Amino acid sequence: MQRKFAVCYNTDMPKLVDHSERKSHIAEATWRVILKEGMKGATVRKIAQEAGVSLGALRHYFTTQHELLAFAMKLVSDRANARIRDVMALGLPPKELVTRVLMELLPLDENSMAEMEVWFAFVFHHKYAGEDYGGLNDGIYPGIVNLLGHLKKEGLLREELDMDIEAERLYALLDGLALHALLEPKRLDRERILRVLHSHMDSICRE
Amino acid sequence: MQRKFAVCYNTDMPKLVDHSERKSHIAEATWRVILKEGMKGATVRKIAQEAGVSLGALRHYFTTQHELLAFAMKLVSDRANARIRDVMALGLPPKELVTRVLMELLPLDENSMAEMEVWFAFVFHHKYAGEDYGGLNDGIYPGIVNLLGHLKKEGLLREELDMDIEAERLYALLDGLALHALLEPKRLDRERILRVLHSHMDSICRE
Repeated sequence: MQRKFAVCYNTDMPKLVDHSERKSHIAEATWRVILKEGMKGATVRKIAQEAGVSLGALRHYFTTQHELLAFAMKLVSDRANARIRDVMALGLPPKELVTRVLMELLPLDENSMAEMEVWFAFVFHHKYAGEDYGGLNDGIYPGIVNLLGHLKKEGLLREELDMDIEAERLYALLDGLALHALLEPKRLDRERILRVLHSHMDSICRE
Repeated sequence: MQRKFAVCYNTDMPKLVDHSERKSHIAEATWRVILKEGMKGATVRKIAQEAGVSLGALRHYFTTQHELLAFAMKLVSDRANARIRDVMALGLPPKELVTRVLMELLPLDENSMAEMEVWFAFVFHHKYAGEDYGGLNDGIYPGIVNLLGHLKKEGLLREELDMDIEAERLYALLDGLALHALLEPKRLDRERILRVLHSHMDSICRE
C-alpha cells in the first residue's frame, strides 16, 4: 500500500506525518461529532477537539467546514464501496450476490447505521441550508440498475418486469427501509429488514 | 361548522377573534417560514413577522416554539386525513380506492410536496436535536395495514403474500419515493412516481 508522507514544520522538530491516515482519523472524529451533536454542532472547532488536534492543524487538511464534511461523506461512500467489492469477490450465485450487495446499502449493524445517520444528516443539512450538493448523486441508483441487469442477463428475473421502473422501485424500497430503521430502530430491526428484502427479491425473480 | 370565539382585551376596543382560523393562519405562516429558512430558522419571531401578528399575540396561542411546530405538523396530518376521507367517500372499486388513498401520501403536487418537506424537516430536526418526538407515530403504518386488509377481504391480493411483510414493504416504498422525490424532483416526477405505485399494486394483486 502506497502512502503519502509530508514534513510538518509547526513543532520544534520536523516530523514525518502520515497524511492519509491522519485525514481518516479526522474524518472519523467528524462522524462522532455529527452523531453526538447533529450537523449543526459539527463545527471545525469541535471536530479538532474530538480528534485531539489543534485548530491550525485541522485547517491544514480542510480549509472550510464544507470541505471537511464532504470528505467525511466520501469516506462513508468509500467504505461501502470497499465492502461491496469484498462481496463481489466471494463468487456467489447471482441472486445471492445481488441480495448481499443490497444488504451493504442497508443499516443492518451499528457501523452501517452510523453511516446512514451521517448520510441523512448531511443530505438534509444541505437541503435545508438551501445549498446545492448535486442531488443524491451517490451512485446507488445506477448501481441498482446494474444489479438488476445482471439478474436479467442470467435469466433470473420475471419476464414481464419493466426494468426501469423496477430499479426505481427497489431504490425507493431500500432508502425507505433505511429511513424507517433510522427513525424506528426498535420496530424495524435487522431481522425484519432482511425479511422484507428477501421477500422483494423473491417477488421479482422467477420461481 | 361550529367555531370558537373569544374576546381579546389587548387592544383599545374589545374584538371578536376567530381563534381556530387565526391558529390555522399562524400554522400556515409557520410552514412558509420552515420552507424558506429551514427548521433552524423557524423561530417564533420570524413566524410572527410572516403571519403579520405581534410576538405577544403569537405567544397567546403557542407558549413555546415546540408547541407551535407540533401544531403545524398536526395540521399537515389533519389535511392529509381530510383528503383521504374525501377519497373514501367516492365509492371507488377496492383496488382503485387503495391506490388513490396511497397517492394522498405521496408528494404529487406542490401542496403535498410542501407538506412532505415540512414533515421531513420536523422529523429530522427532532432526530438530530436528540428530542423524543414519539417515533414517526403518524398513523401511516397502521393505515397501510388496514388498506391491505381491505384488499385481502375483497379477495384481490395474491394468495401467497405475507401480510405483515407486505405492509412493511409498501410503507418503505412510499416513504422512499417521497424522500427521493423531495431530493431529486426533476428525475422522479409525478408521472414516474405513479408508474412505480401502479406497478407495485399490480404486482401484489391477482390478475
